[in-house]
Amino acid sequence: MANEDQFKKVISHAKEYGYVFQSSEIYDGLSAVYDYAQNGVELKKNIRDYWWKAMVQMNENIVGIDTAIFMHPTTWKASGHVDAFSDPLIDNKDSKKRYRADVLVEDYCAKIESKIDKEIKKAEKRFGDAFNKEEFVSTNGRVVGYQEKINVILKRLGQSLEREDLADVKALIEELEIADPMTGSRNWTDVKQFNLMFGTKLGASAESAMDLYLRPETAQGIFVNFLNVQKSGRMKIPFGIAQTGKAFRNEIVARQFIFRMREFEQMEMQFFIKPGTQKEWFEYWKENRMKWHLSLGMDQDNYRFHDHEKLAHYADAATDIEFKFPFGFKELEGIHSRTDFDLKQHEEFSGKKLQYFDHEDNASYTPYVLETSIGLDRMFLAVFSNALEDETLEDGSVRTVLKLPAVLAPIKAAILPLVKKDGLPEIAKQIMEDLKWDFNVDYDEKDAVGRRYRRQDANGTPFCITVDHDTLEDNTVTIRHRDTMEQQRVKIEDLNEIIHKEVDAKHWLQKMK
Amino acid sequence: MANEDQFKKVISHAKEYGYVFQSSEIYDGLSAVYDYAQNGVELKKNIRDYWWKAMVQMNENIVGIDTAIFMHPTTWKASGHVDAFSDPLIDNKDSKKRYRADVLVEDYCAKIESKIDKEIKKAEKRFGDAFNKEEFVSTNGRVVGYQEKINVILKRLGQSLEREDLADVKALIEELEIADPMTGSRNWTDVKQFNLMFGTKLGASAESAMDLYLRPETAQGIFVNFLNVQKSGRMKIPFGIAQTGKAFRNEIVARQFIFRMREFEQMEMQFFIKPGTQKEWFEYWKENRMKWHLSLGMDQDNYRFHDHEKLAHYADAATDIEFKFPFGFKELEGIHSRTDFDLKQHEEFSGKKLQYFDHEDNASYTPYVLETSIGLDRMFLAVFSNALEDETLEDGSVRTVLKLPAVLAPIKAAILPLVKKDGLPEIAKQIMEDLKWDFNVDYDEKDAVGRRYRRQDANGTPFCITVDHDTLEDNTVTIRHRDTMEQQRVKIEDLNEIIHKEVDAKHWLQKMK
Repeated sequence: MANEDQFKKVISHAKEYGYVFQSSEIYDGLSAVYDYAQNGVELKKNIRDYWWKAMVQMNENIVGIDTAIFMHPTTWKASGHVDAFSDPLIDNKDSKKRYRADVLVEDYCAKIESKIDKEIKKAEKRFGDAFNKEEFVSTNGRVVGYQEKINVILKRLGQSLEREDLADVKALIEELEIADPMTGSRNWTDVKQFNLMFGTKLGASAESAMDLYLRPETAQGIFVNFLNVQKSGRMKIPFGIAQTGKAFRNEIVARQFIFRMREFEQMEMQFFIKPGTQKEWFEYWKENRMKWHLSLGMDQDNYRFHDHEKLAHYADAATDIEFKFPFGFKELEGIHSRTDFDLKQHEEFSGKKLQYFDHEDNASYTPYVLETSIGLDRMFLAVFSNALEDETLEDGSVRTVLKLPAVLAPIKAAILPLVKKDGLPEIAKQIMEDLKWDFNVDYDEKDAVGRRYRRQDANGTPFCITVDHDTLEDNTVTIRHRDTMEQQRVKIEDLNEIIHKEVDAKHWLQKMK
Repeated sequence: MANEDQFKKVISHAKEYGYVFQSSEIYDGLSAVYDYAQNGVELKKNIRDYWWKAMVQMNENIVGIDTAIFMHPTTWKASGHVDAFSDPLIDNKDSKKRYRADVLVEDYCAKIESKIDKEIKKAEKRFGDAFNKEEFVSTNGRVVGYQEKINVILKRLGQSLEREDLADVKALIEELEIADPMTGSRNWTDVKQFNLMFGTKLGASAESAMDLYLRPETAQGIFVNFLNVQKSGRMKIPFGIAQTGKAFRNEIVARQFIFRMREFEQMEMQFFIKPGTQKEWFEYWKENRMKWHLSLGMDQDNYRFHDHEKLAHYADAATDIEFKFPFGFKELEGIHSRTDFDLKQHEEFSGKKLQYFDHEDNASYTPYVLETSIGLDRMFLAVFSNALEDETLEDGSVRTVLKLPAVLAPIKAAILPLVKKDGLPEIAKQIMEDLKWDFNVDYDEKDAVGRRYRRQDANGTPFCITVDHDTLEDNTVTIRHRDTMEQQRVKIEDLNEIIHKEVDAKHWLQKMK
């Protein structure tokens, strides 16, 4: 399946099977905001719990925290977000529409890129089997010219943005004669930096109201609580503080379903270490986090590291774990060596000492910080899109199956009476009543059993338990495995243990060892 | 312990033991916003999971959802929040401070009330054992006068608010000569209604920006998704949709620690039913929710129902489950029969049909809704404050113990080597390594074992597992129970099962049967 088609299928399957709905759909939706539906909420919760268990429960020296979305506004001065968390925007004076200036230029380049693609396709058709793409691209005059043009434009854009020469970004847009994509107008304002934080006001009166921001990241809630946690928890360095929670960014260009949303959830861990040890901890957490991803059984080829060459002002090393989404390899998680930048900034802005007294060294220091930061919604999209398959069976028919890791699946088992009579529904319901204390289970008696299997396959349910007439004789049932479609005959009394072994997080986490 | 002292102790214990910190404390805090610390995050998570398990996992006909905090703004017009979710506020012209007008009047009455208390205390002292409080209150001229005055004031306040006569509320404040509590000034503005929703803007340009609200309740996210869930989940009435999540209210008077916060978390379930069946479902959910509370083993005397006499515009029956907090009985959970108000409103404002086709009746109708709505932070405060005890032991010494229900306790067991030598720490650590796959556990080797027991008692840890020299011989350890302080000798290999039996949610939920 082409990537774009696959992505469309992911989105429609997510809606049809109760995973993700557009937010406020009855009011025609809210751009770049989504709701998690009855299955989505369980998958999201299971991912969150699997991360929490791996990070907090399994590590004696990592504890959790849950800080508020509202923080004192000075937090965001200290963190640098008030001054530097912004996108370069440009308005069209005629249409009154606003755009990201860099995206306008990038879209312009994408158009040239599509011309290159056209040339390639044309040549491919002409030369047939004899076509050598690499050679064509490096020798065809028109293609080389296009490519050169793209390179020149993107280089100039990058340099202008880096030295914050927004006038030159505007000049570039004008030189390229880029028009408002909605109206064709070329009547542009200057380019201005626009802060991505959502603002609100705390308190009632105009005089006393305090300007607040919705947090753009969860990390700062950890930093400002560093000393409180360290002291009340009697933590010794190295130790970590983990948090999951919502963050908000007023993205102008928010695309790609739940990949880039205005309201999203992060899972972050800040690991406080002794200065000088950051290299080894950076390597440790790179390896550890990749192990976590691979423990879920997804193909290793779907992952790659992307080390940053250009580092953020607070970092002395950084890498992304990229995942192969339907639209290509993109950042899924970041691992950053943040030095003592954040704690030092909060010391300066709060006037409070944020140091650690090291009993071994008999000395105080500001700890360095190693961060792991993953987007929960992105992880959801990674798991979901990777799991969705149209599988051609031996008889040539196609089944749609959602091969979610069993530990993450919303419903662990569906209990199906083969027919709606002869006492089979009663037995099936009793099995459901017994299993529901331990698992999310489903009962389904509608339609032929084959059709029910397909429905559960598409829903991602790893096990179907079928009650038939033999069950009346010997208290056994059939357990069918979603991925292999294999069926086993097992005793009813063994079901609980069989399912536990396949779905409990602890068995999956063993693979991280 | 006096209630006020008990409440202060709750707050300081919550900080000292890593349950709740003031938000942004290093920046001197943010009023009425709190952070959950390393133990608090686990307690909160366990309460949330216990609710979710009881509501969603255990009920075949209830599913979950997780909708965004940002919703289309028309949602809040339809729900009535834009027009009617407000407090009557008054400004002092000199101090520029703003107050809730009704609270100013209520505080005035509280002052009269304290005069009554003074009279009672004086009389009590004078009459000693002969003092009959009831008789005194109903016959003493001064006290009767005070009480009458309070009654007159509160009646007038209530009536004025009900008919939205804000001019009379101001007149009342002026007649009573109520002064700004900060400055003493009586120079007041008019009373105005002030909406409690936090506003923000989505999008970048002034022209295209959309005014959004942070949701003041999670319920509306369920209503707008009603049909999507019903269809994709093939749900049949009666069925419920449950949600936990943050909500925001710009409270002017936000007091009482985490009881009334500006940012808080709700756990709501909307149960969709056939019109005409709301009475029986109201009774069902009243009983069911009380059972849930009582399953946690807290004293029944701490709970009471408070049926509403005056109903909100959308309700045809409503009751609160009130809990005995350190500051008295207050609302913990609400159970409301909301009729078809919400769905009808969204039909009207969205122009979309939100009806259910009932195959049994072969007819469509707008379902009625039965709501259960509990504040997660309030439940946290209920559990925490109820658990905290200063217990006088047989030897006259006092121990501070946090008797949290084991299913909710952040740390399930602490493993303690009796001494830091002879190989005991190694065995203790091995036990921790084995147990941590299943439970949050703690390892503690610092200080004498008695002191460690006290620390774990105050932390709320239900079990201490002590490794001593006998362990070396026979692979047994001592397991000490927090509440009774009883100690048992058990085999190491049995620990896992012993703890599971005490802490697993399923054993606690059995009590709801």
